[in-house]
Amino acid sequence: MTTGIAHEIKALTFDVFGTVVDWRSSVIREGEQLNQAKGLNVDWARFADEWRAGYAPAMNRVRQGELPWTKLDDLHRMTLDQLLIAFGIADQLDEDEKAHLNRVWHRLTPWPDSVEGLLQLKQRFILATLSNGNVSLLVNMARHAGLPWDCVLSSELAGHYKRDPEVYHMAANLLSLNPSQILMVAAHQDDLQAAHREGMRTAFVKRPLEFGPDATPDLSIDPCFDFVAEDFLDLARQLS
Amino acid sequence: MTTGIAHEIKALTFDVFGTVVDWRSSVIREGEQLNQAKGLNVDWARFADEWRAGYAPAMNRVRQGELPWTKLDDLHRMTLDQLLIAFGIADQLDEDEKAHLNRVWHRLTPWPDSVEGLLQLKQRFILATLSNGNVSLLVNMARHAGLPWDCVLSSELAGHYKRDPEVYHMAANLLSLNPSQILMVAAHQDDLQAAHREGMRTAFVKRPLEFGPDATPDLSIDPCFDFVAEDFLDLARQLS
Repeated sequence: MTTGIAHEIKALTFDVFGTVVDWRSSVIREGEQLNQAKGLNVDWARFADEWRAGYAPAMNRVRQGELPWTKLDDLHRMTLDQLLIAFGIADQLDEDEKAHLNRVWHRLTPWPDSVEGLLQLKQRFILATLSNGNVSLLVNMARHAGLPWDCVLSSELAGHYKRDPEVYHMAANLLSLNPSQILMVAAHQDDLQAAHREGMRTAFVKRPLEFGPDATPDLSIDPCFDFVAEDFLDLARQLS
Repeated sequence: MTTGIAHEIKALTFDVFGTVVDWRSSVIREGEQLNQAKGLNVDWARFADEWRAGYAPAMNRVRQGELPWTKLDDLHRMTLDQLLIAFGIADQLDEDEKAHLNRVWHRLTPWPDSVEGLLQLKQRFILATLSNGNVSLLVNMARHAGLPWDCVLSSELAGHYKRDPEVYHMAANLLSLNPSQILMVAAHQDDLQAAHREGMRTAFVKRPLEFGPDATPDLSIDPCFDFVAEDFLDLARQLS
């Protein structure tokens, strides 16, 4: 069955944070450099986890109309400012240092298979992001990490955050494709379930280390997944 | 003065039709192949010129509210259908052939300096389209022609066609830059004048052959141009 599906697919749209890039290790690495440079003693694993934990509640404030449309960069900064106080280092960083730290999300490192997998997939399919990251964040990340997107699509273009259906509709509309010609690729069940509801095809890529070596992320397979892959190289093999 | 400006610039946005790609030769070449394949006798130079001449009036119907937002692909098709009748070949092409011909705008060939110039410019600047072509047209063209965009920006994302100011605002907003950090690159005075009015920097690139060997396009230099270049390699030199 999946072979038939692969022939229909024209474009792949990718969740980015956790699916393409390893946000947690990247934040920890830059944070530890900051510890050294500034003589701090922050637990950056905990900091990274709490920063990421602030993501869904911040987006929900936009979704529920409590905030107008706000770029993810600005939501990240609101959470960062709270964490800098909570971790007792708000006075030890100046504005330029805080702005630079906030843009760590522009400098995330890909999983080891990501770039090579994307290059293989690009030979046959249009590759686009479909991320809650704002456009400039995704563009800077792609330049930094060498991610070969054909097109940067973002929730920002829909004025809605995933998992709102408008985001998936926007992708199909801008790519001038039927949803069934698009394969949504993500490491997160709910993102794929939402894409499936809008008629897109789905590929679950396991990223067991997204939340660190001690976490036990949900790797369960939903019946709505058209493909399940160990990594992007495995996905490229299955789609070839 | 221009050296100081070059240091402020973070991103280059490009007009595409005529500035990056040679639409006229590409349409003529594919048309002549169609003459051969179908035993037609169409003057494709005249056909290309009339197709392009239909572009501004078609966009103006959208701008003036006579049509709702309509992708350039669909405006091209409306003009194509009229021209197929006018040239007496509407009955000699089936629907698949007409749809394929309409997508010739996805398969335009770059000017000889375009790809190498963009690769040089990409080392230092974010490169984005800022075209009236719809997103899928620009994505397909980039894949076909090897255009190394960091980001595909289109009038479609603003719901307005150039030279409406909303298009230039959209680019600055999505790139998270001030207009003065963006250099608009185009072969057309009015596009650059409109970008200048919105605070963007401007680079005029001469494309004397855009309208064919017998045309005498307007190559006059407006005082609002920050850079004037012979081609993209020359522009890369001036910005280095």
